[in-house]
Amino acid sequence: MLTTQESTRSEFIKSVVKTVPDYPKPGIQFRDVTSVLENYQAFSQCIAMLVEKYRPLGFNKVAGTEARGFLFGAPLALELGIGFVPVRKPNKLPRDVLSESYELEYGKDTLEIHKDAINPGDKVLLIDDLLATGGTISATAKLIRNLGGVVEYAGFVIGLPALHGYEKLADLGVEPYCICEFDGE
Amino acid sequence: MLTTQESTRSEFIKSVVKTVPDYPKPGIQFRDVTSVLENYQAFSQCIAMLVEKYRPLGFNKVAGTEARGFLFGAPLALELGIGFVPVRKPNKLPRDVLSESYELEYGKDTLEIHKDAINPGDKVLLIDDLLATGGTISATAKLIRNLGGVVEYAGFVIGLPALHGYEKLADLGVEPYCICEFDGE
Repeated sequence: MLTTQESTRSEFIKSVVKTVPDYPKPGIQFRDVTSVLENYQAFSQCIAMLVEKYRPLGFNKVAGTEARGFLFGAPLALELGIGFVPVRKPNKLPRDVLSESYELEYGKDTLEIHKDAINPGDKVLLIDDLLATGGTISATAKLIRNLGGVVEYAGFVIGLPALHGYEKLADLGVEPYCICEFDGE
Repeated sequence: MLTTQESTRSEFIKSVVKTVPDYPKPGIQFRDVTSVLENYQAFSQCIAMLVEKYRPLGFNKVAGTEARGFLFGAPLALELGIGFVPVRKPNKLPRDVLSESYELEYGKDTLEIHKDAINPGDKVLLIDDLLATGGTISATAKLIRNLGGVVEYAGFVIGLPALHGYEKLADLGVEPYCICEFDGE
């Protein structure tokens, strides 16, 4: 349950998200988080909500996925006083990496992480801008667990419950939290 | 001139940057800024140095280029109390965009910005992780100026003076600042 204050902030942030119809293809209502970044009040309240939710849980690191996860994960790590681990597209990280491929609607995608970015036992908070099918964040959780990290929580600005990412994460033992949600796609 | 305190912080941040030899090809010494992100002390001191340098200059917006510019530009915008404008690779931004192509060593690359992200007269601070030849940041400056924004300053974590990006920016009327520098490539 959201408290009244959280609900008000959540509704404000949701009101700032612009919806772009028929992008990237007909029938899709694209939820554009760049409008949140461009609005200091909305952006800072996002980070404040994530700090309040996650500070009490005592993480060692924040991991964010390229590229929009960087925009929220990096400021959150700084506010929590911990390091930020970037999870990137292939051939972007220069040191020794671990890779994980995952299914997209059409084809596959791959994510990579530096092997020395996670120490066994690290409590790692996952951050991305949007929870849709959960494919990206599930691949990120697997990468970090394969390096010995503990992954139990993932935070997002926007959730699209109709696309079943919540259930996918629950099956992995990862608890999702989305600042605001949109019905349908 | 750096003051003594700045020099000490700059040297600390430089000491945290890992150098990866022969990446992405033989003979290149790759300066890996992810090691700064993973180190809270180094990451937070980077942002603090940028805040101290740029707060007095009164910007309206910070613009950062995909993807590593997001990691430093977004936290800086939040600390300065202003919005963040992402400058992205093609076909990533969902609304109406302006594009700018620029030359790479081999071939071309293109950057895009939302047309409504900049208002005429906005004072925009450019942020990226590394100043090498200056191609990316020059294309970013052109995009923002073409939308009526004022671009006079660009901040970086790492500068590579041997690659002549400083001169390229000076020719454009943009003053660069790099927290630390490495000689050679």
